[in-house]
Amino acid sequence: MEHNISQAVIRRVPRYYRYLGELLENGVERISSKELSERMQVTASQIRQDLNNFGGFGQQGYGYNVQFLYDEIGKILGLTKVHNVALFGVGNLGAAIANYVSFEKLPFRMVGLFDADPEKKGKKISGIEIQMVDEFEEFIRKHRVDIAVLTLPKDAAMPVAEYLVEHGVRAFWNFAHVDLVVPKDVVVENVHLSDSLMQLSYNMTDS
Amino acid sequence: MEHNISQAVIRRVPRYYRYLGELLENGVERISSKELSERMQVTASQIRQDLNNFGGFGQQGYGYNVQFLYDEIGKILGLTKVHNVALFGVGNLGAAIANYVSFEKLPFRMVGLFDADPEKKGKKISGIEIQMVDEFEEFIRKHRVDIAVLTLPKDAAMPVAEYLVEHGVRAFWNFAHVDLVVPKDVVVENVHLSDSLMQLSYNMTDS
Repeated sequence: MEHNISQAVIRRVPRYYRYLGELLENGVERISSKELSERMQVTASQIRQDLNNFGGFGQQGYGYNVQFLYDEIGKILGLTKVHNVALFGVGNLGAAIANYVSFEKLPFRMVGLFDADPEKKGKKISGIEIQMVDEFEEFIRKHRVDIAVLTLPKDAAMPVAEYLVEHGVRAFWNFAHVDLVVPKDVVVENVHLSDSLMQLSYNMTDS
Repeated sequence: MEHNISQAVIRRVPRYYRYLGELLENGVERISSKELSERMQVTASQIRQDLNNFGGFGQQGYGYNVQFLYDEIGKILGLTKVHNVALFGVGNLGAAIANYVSFEKLPFRMVGLFDADPEKKGKKISGIEIQMVDEFEEFIRKHRVDIAVLTLPKDAAMPVAEYLVEHGVRAFWNFAHVDLVVPKDVVVENVHLSDSLMQLSYNMTDS
């Protein structure tokens, strides 16, 4: 099994995982690259090339073992262990994302909710009490936190991120409209909603 | 001015727009590619190459005119006119996105909210009353809808998208965990939150 997979392939991998999961739900045990190709609207040769990265060598006239591929990709994506998630900024979007993470079938578990607004202190979302951001120091002494979600206003995101890095957070899921500047060993995945809307707007103009 | 810009460049453009907007807010009139490069953590030559697509030829020792570039990029992104947005699926995420679109400074205007749950009928979010999905036929006769946001469960997304395409919708901002199958002249921009979480998980495992 190969772990040096390019970011371009990795961008496509969650989609394979999603499709393979649906196939499993529907009781499909084997699938040819041709069938998968039609479902996913990707060329069959692209699929063969991508899945070879995961030891998913299909057999001529026999196809891929769906469960095997699903499990291998799950391992590579780090989905065989539970990731503890704490969220910072419990506004509308933050509350929605907290619920989303809690109800999603993936192995991510909300363990803490933090906000700067004292009026939110003690309120609950998905059964978790909102704490103040400066209580995090205390919190992380007792709980493992693998990922911090930032659903904060732009100006608050960077100071909070710095504070969290200082206290050992090594991965961010960032919804704030700002590119975080973090040490090299810290991982950031951005969801920039406004960038996505602009992209849509451009493609509308263009078509 | 060049309109045939590659999707790779276009993926980077909203970020330029965001940075240029911040510079304007801070009263910066001119900036060199070197300074912009340091802020954006992109090489200066990449910046020069990208911005040349927008007629933003910087002058040696003089730099880029921030307002000019901002305006040109805004035109190309289709941000000089208002886009009317209707949202389908007013759960937690839908409500958050509706608020987001309403408060964002970009020229997108929420004009309608639709849900399938009769208990939500008539409730208001950001001053807009929730209607039933099948009222959309009536609605679109009276209102222009440029973009449909889908914040629906996976299984509902495709039938609703088909219904909307039938009634003239030509652009989707899709948050549902499904790849929409739509006619060629219909534009789809996806925000797949679970794909993004998996990406993060992979990069954590990898580092």
